[in-house]
Amino acid sequence: MIEYRNVRVALLGGGTVGAQVARLLLEHADEFAARVGASLELTGIAVRNLDAPRSADLPKELFTTDAESLILGADIVIEVMGGIEPARSYILQAINSGADVVTANKALLATHGTELFAAAEQVGAQVYYEAAVAGAIPIIRPLRDSLAGDRVKRILGIVNGTTNFILDMMDTDGASLEHALAVATELGYAEADPTADIDGYDAAQKASLLASLAFHTNVPLESVHREGIRGVTSQTVELARKAGYVVKLLAICERLTDLVTGEEGVSTRVYPALISRDHPLAAVHKANNAVFVEAEAAGSLMFYGAGAGGPETASAVLGDLVSAARRHVIGGPGMGESTHANMAILPMSFVTTRYHVTLSVLDEPGVLASVAGVFKDHGVSVELVEQGLYGNGGGVHGESRPTATLVIGTHAALESDLAATVSALAQLDAVSSVVSVLRVEGA
Amino acid sequence: MIEYRNVRVALLGGGTVGAQVARLLLEHADEFAARVGASLELTGIAVRNLDAPRSADLPKELFTTDAESLILGADIVIEVMGGIEPARSYILQAINSGADVVTANKALLATHGTELFAAAEQVGAQVYYEAAVAGAIPIIRPLRDSLAGDRVKRILGIVNGTTNFILDMMDTDGASLEHALAVATELGYAEADPTADIDGYDAAQKASLLASLAFHTNVPLESVHREGIRGVTSQTVELARKAGYVVKLLAICERLTDLVTGEEGVSTRVYPALISRDHPLAAVHKANNAVFVEAEAAGSLMFYGAGAGGPETASAVLGDLVSAARRHVIGGPGMGESTHANMAILPMSFVTTRYHVTLSVLDEPGVLASVAGVFKDHGVSVELVEQGLYGNGGGVHGESRPTATLVIGTHAALESDLAATVSALAQLDAVSSVVSVLRVEGA
Repeated sequence: MIEYRNVRVALLGGGTVGAQVARLLLEHADEFAARVGASLELTGIAVRNLDAPRSADLPKELFTTDAESLILGADIVIEVMGGIEPARSYILQAINSGADVVTANKALLATHGTELFAAAEQVGAQVYYEAAVAGAIPIIRPLRDSLAGDRVKRILGIVNGTTNFILDMMDTDGASLEHALAVATELGYAEADPTADIDGYDAAQKASLLASLAFHTNVPLESVHREGIRGVTSQTVELARKAGYVVKLLAICERLTDLVTGEEGVSTRVYPALISRDHPLAAVHKANNAVFVEAEAAGSLMFYGAGAGGPETASAVLGDLVSAARRHVIGGPGMGESTHANMAILPMSFVTTRYHVTLSVLDEPGVLASVAGVFKDHGVSVELVEQGLYGNGGGVHGESRPTATLVIGTHAALESDLAATVSALAQLDAVSSVVSVLRVEGA
Repeated sequence: MIEYRNVRVALLGGGTVGAQVARLLLEHADEFAARVGASLELTGIAVRNLDAPRSADLPKELFTTDAESLILGADIVIEVMGGIEPARSYILQAINSGADVVTANKALLATHGTELFAAAEQVGAQVYYEAAVAGAIPIIRPLRDSLAGDRVKRILGIVNGTTNFILDMMDTDGASLEHALAVATELGYAEADPTADIDGYDAAQKASLLASLAFHTNVPLESVHREGIRGVTSQTVELARKAGYVVKLLAICERLTDLVTGEEGVSTRVYPALISRDHPLAAVHKANNAVFVEAEAAGSLMFYGAGAGGPETASAVLGDLVSAARRHVIGGPGMGESTHANMAILPMSFVTTRYHVTLSVLDEPGVLASVAGVFKDHGVSVELVEQGLYGNGGGVHGESRPTATLVIGTHAALESDLAATVSALAQLDAVSSVVSVLRVEGA
């Protein structure tokens, strides 16, 4: 066997993921060398604060605050510091100095991916990012390589562990959103400011990456329709359960017909949706992630596992590191973007799904008829109606007349027709409030 | 963009998979060209009988009986004819003429993989085989690349769709094995001679491939411990259900301690086992496949989808074809074996699991004490005992004394101790018969 020189690896970031990457790299040095065909030399770990506590016991001399010098001498740069700057500048520096890059930074890729991939392509460097979506779950490579001979039709992903933990706890324990969020925060699943998770920003970043990869086209983050879970109440979850559904925050990437041109386009969206309890995604509990892929020839596939966590994310980072290091030793392609398709990005109004609309209505004769009339006027066909499940549960405080809850399930309808229907419903005298509008996915 | 000449693709086999590969390749020629960066030219389809019916409408002029001439002119040879010969000779011819090979032939790889990979390595050719395990489910690449920076501890796979269909039908409908097999045959899931599926030969071939890949070592097919599902009765399945389990035929690949040397070795085995109904594998219904992977850093991952079928297997073949074709255009490594670890292959007697032993016993005082004594004598600790679930259900015809069914669940115990226990139990006067011995997996 030919002896190669060491592959020099610089690590940017010594947080939860970084410390685990360094630990595993040092602990299993022999296995890495055997798998790559050359030793992987960890040349240093760039951090902001040398004295910060670390989640693994690592040699002090590896730490430095001088990221730029570290990058200069590296064959491969691993970026696990997170955030946009200075991560972006460091990655560009690494690419321009001829290094390959492994990153777990979904926020950066979703906002500056095009710039980074273009810079990499110009110098023949590679950017690997398996860890950026769904933590340890291999999803980038399967989409990019294994399904490269197939046509992905739709992806339904549970890609945010925090919100899945919260919704799962609301479903299994009947907890309120506030209580479940407090537990998630206490257990370290949610950040002090949970906005990125709760409002769907994190899921939208991952949806943008998944859609770009699955459809070989560029799906900008701004084009992802995003709704978070703040509006999901324990009543919503309980009504869903009674109807045989579970509420999940889904990242959805779908080939759809452009209603204007008639051509095929891409719809990418994030919202809490109803999933049948028979669907494999319904069984994804706690903070786990899963990506359900429907492809033309392969049929339905699901990839399931831990979506976050230090060692879990480190596993994905290190898998990329081995690929990058093998490329240094024996050559080969990396994980670059494939955006040849140039598909149209479709607006939310082109989406067709089924809906469950929950209304708080006056408990009076004729209410059902006037509600049903609104659906009929907008061409939305009603599949089921459930009334009075909660008696006065949906009532408005200070409202003197008795109210009832009305759940209307529709057949597949166009989003724009449904939006118009919901506006009209809100205007009805008989409707106290539109409690929730949830789409049904996974059919 | 640089213009490359066509990549010439020869297809060996025009059966269920071959016809779908050809159809998709012709139908989506533009997408393939865009993904590869060069056109893929299907130069011909080698078949035994030019007039056999095909599952897709394909141009007559593509078919030939002259496989050898077809191989000579090809950059990439796809082998989906199955069987050992002439597939083996054709693949060797392809490798020696400098072509890369894509194959779905698990039987060939499990028996002659070492020979084929060695031949490929000698000339720098590549052998791709994603379709050989679990049909459309991407499992080869995730194990080989995504988890290359992690240490796989254990794999539990449902890798045979036919037996899963049968066991699932026995579980959900209470069907007998014979009836479920008859339905599977009628639906085309089982072959006229179901031995390869029912007796675990097919699963053993896949287990050998998965273990070799996951542990970077060579696990010969002969070393795989194999038990089929013929002994699984509807009573077994019902007892399992009452105890909170489901019976699944599992392919298990596990790192274990060698009880002689104290070093780490590999155990690879196939048998029907009990899985808790809470385990993700318990939710794998019908003819679906799933591979559950436990890795040191990544934790638990599951890959789920269709394990067989023409278009599904074609999807995996075409994914490999795109990888192989990209390698022709831009270079890079293939899917070769990684067998640097040279781990010891451990015998079944080194395996530790929990067991459920079902006995038909005489319904007399003192029986439980003598049965319990046998477990105690062999150092096997008993966790639970359930008696009389079936009354005389387990009775032996012509036996005059009344019998009862006794299920004994053990704590984790060594296979060799359990085997000695079961032998001793069979000798007891009070035991009419050992109805079943099932291992509990997935803890």
